[in-house]
Formats: sequence, structure tokens, C-alpha cells
Amino acid sequence: MKDTKIAEPTVERLVQYHRLLEQLAAEGQKVVSSREMGEMLSFKASQVRKDLSYFGEIGKRGVGYHVDRLFKHIGGILASPRLWSIGLAGVGKLGEALLGYQAFRNEKFQIKALFDVDPSKIGTHIQGTPCYSIEDAPRVLREEGIDVVIITVPTGAAQSVADRVVSAGTVKGILNFSPVTLSVPDSVLLYSVDISIELEKLLFYLKHRER
Amino acid sequence: MKDTKIAEPTVERLVQYHRLLEQLAAEGQKVVSSREMGEMLSFKASQVRKDLSYFGEIGKRGVGYHVDRLFKHIGGILASPRLWSIGLAGVGKLGEALLGYQAFRNEKFQIKALFDVDPSKIGTHIQGTPCYSIEDAPRVLREEGIDVVIITVPTGAAQSVADRVVSAGTVKGILNFSPVTLSVPDSVLLYSVDISIELEKLLFYLKHRER
Repeated sequence: MKDTKIAEPTVERLVQYHRLLEQLAAEGQKVVSSREMGEMLSFKASQVRKDLSYFGEIGKRGVGYHVDRLFKHIGGILASPRLWSIGLAGVGKLGEALLGYQAFRNEKFQIKALFDVDPSKIGTHIQGTPCYSIEDAPRVLREEGIDVVIITVPTGAAQSVADRVVSAGTVKGILNFSPVTLSVPDSVLLYSVDISIELEKLLFYLKHRER
Repeated sequence: MKDTKIAEPTVERLVQYHRLLEQLAAEGQKVVSSREMGEMLSFKASQVRKDLSYFGEIGKRGVGYHVDRLFKHIGGILASPRLWSIGLAGVGKLGEALLGYQAFRNEKFQIKALFDVDPSKIGTHIQGTPCYSIEDAPRVLREEGIDVVIITVPTGAAQSVADRVVSAGTVKGILNFSPVTLSVPDSVLLYSVDISIELEKLLFYLKHRER
């Protein structure tokens, strides 16, 4: 399995299969076909079969895949070798929403430190996690051994916060939610989530549907 | 331009080019090369050139593209024929974050109605928008002519909220932020944003980088 070469859309589909299987298992479903999975996730059944067979899972014709087994198998591929330590910079509404987001509370990562500029937040615990001044970020990130920082600060502050995070010298990845293009060194893996892009895409396709 | 057939990743890149060009224009940059754009967005320069030439924009060798002109050109492709009316169901932290999100406040759409189950929110205005009971959603959606509903309710409520939204009979699209796979009729365009998937992808690649 040459999984260093797995393309990003494939990883995304794997995560989606994993979520769906968890949901099906919780609903008590025992088997699922590639067609069903494809329909529920808006992928072609052939795509599902191709992805799963690449990872060594072949469904039984007329039966499909065992939900529990497939869930565990994909879980193994996505598994982390260790618990990741996460920091979050910008405890505004989006930051607090992420802190409370169920899917952000799992066994793969732990949110260990928050950073903000608001004196009323600095020095307190928010949803159980200590909040520090953004100015102390480089020191705290090093001391806490934080691997990844989620950036949910206002657009105008995002690059300077990213610079501080990078200056810690120990952070390996940044997940940026600010709708701005950040510049970081190649040694830091940067992912950006622009949550309004999906709305733009949806509206783009609606426009063409209406014609 | 057969733009009904534009693939989703292309639309996403167009939106990203548009955002980047807006940012460059605000910073006073006059021209930009495909290489620069590619570097800033982590695409190959050849991808940028291919996308832009598909839409009729050819950069000048050694000069690049005019930032303003390209911004307007892509803006035209992404333009809406009219103002879209948006509803938002679930005014929790994520819902409030979206309401306050700058990029969600633009000239293409207007958030016209909010829906929640919390009696302390129903009947009030939140960030200037009226909040209704989710039970009244079918009627309000029809009366307000709402095209798209953003769902930011807890996971367990997402499907029943989607069902209510669909039952209005007039909603054309749903943008779902709940980490659950929803089922809607084909007549409704469904997009889902699972904001934790990006963190999972980031961690997956970090794992392989560390090996």
C-alpha cells in the first residue's frame, strides 16, 4: 500500500466512508453495498468499489461489505500513530463552535491550548482548555509540544498569527479557517478551509440548473 | 463556454482565483503570473494557465495577467443572475459564526430568515435577521421565497430539519454543516461541508510525513 501517494480526494473519500460506516453501524446495519454507499455519498458505485479494492476490501457480489469490518479496516488506514496535540488561535464564534463540535472531539487529537488577544479570555479556561495570549504562542506551542494549530482569527490578523505559530519552530501543520491566502514555509503543512466556498459552488450550480 | 459542465474542482479553483485576485488588488498589485498564483494557492502553474485559458484569458509571456481585469472576468463567470435568498437553520455557535462571517455577507445573497428551537431566540432578531420556530419553516421558506437553506443544527436533528426544509417545496439547495449524511430528493441540490474532514486530512498527511 503506497499510502504516502494517496491523493487528497481519495483521503477525503476514505474519511467520508468512515463517517458513513460509523453512522450505519450505529443504526444497526450489518452489510452495505457499494451502490448504497455511493448513493448516500453522491459517488459512483464504481468509485466506491475502486477505492475499497485499492485498500484490499472486496465486497461480496449480491451481499456487499460488512459494515463493522469495513469500518475498522478504514479506521486502521486513517489511524494516528499517536495522539496529536492541537492548538486553536482565535476563540471567537467560529473557534468556540469548533471547540464544541462533536467531530473535533475524538481520540486522535486533543485541543491543548487556545490563543486570543482578548484580555477577558486570556488566563481563563474555555470549554476546559486554557487560553493564552497570542503573544505567548511561540513559547506555549513549544512547551506543550503542539503539532497543529487551527487558525480562526479575523482575516486581517491571520498572516501575523500564522507567522507567530511558525516562529515556534515546532508546529508541523496549520489548519486555516480565515478566508485569506496564507504564506508559510514548506516545512509546515497548510490546509485552508473556506467555508463560504461551498455556498458559492452551490449557487453556481443552482444558476446553471435554473437556465 | 459549456459551463453547465464545469467540474466541481474547477469551480472551486475559480472561486479561489477570485478571492486571491481580490486580495492582490486590495494590496495594489497590478499584474500576476500563473506561477505566482499557483504558488500562493498550491496549484501547478500549468493548472492555472489551463483553467484561465479555458475561460478565455491568456496571460502575456513574461508579464502575466492583469489583476483587475482577471478579477472582473472571473467575477462575471461566478456572478449570480439575481440575489439569492438564504435561510439558516440552527443559530448555535456555528450558525452565529456563519452569520458574522465576512465572506457570507456579499452582494450575491441575503440571509433572510433564521430558524431555531430555542424559545429565547424565536421571535427575536439575531444579527439583524428574524428568527422563527423551525416548525414554521415550511411556511416561512415559501413566503420569503428562500432558495437555499444552510443547516447548522446538531447532528441528531439534521435529517428532520432537512425534511421540513424540503417539505416547503420551494427550496432549491441545502448547504449542510452537520457531520451526517443527509438524504434529500434529487430536485434539491445538497452540498455538505464537514469541517473536521480537513483536520483529518491534514493529520493523515502529517503521519506520512513523519515516517
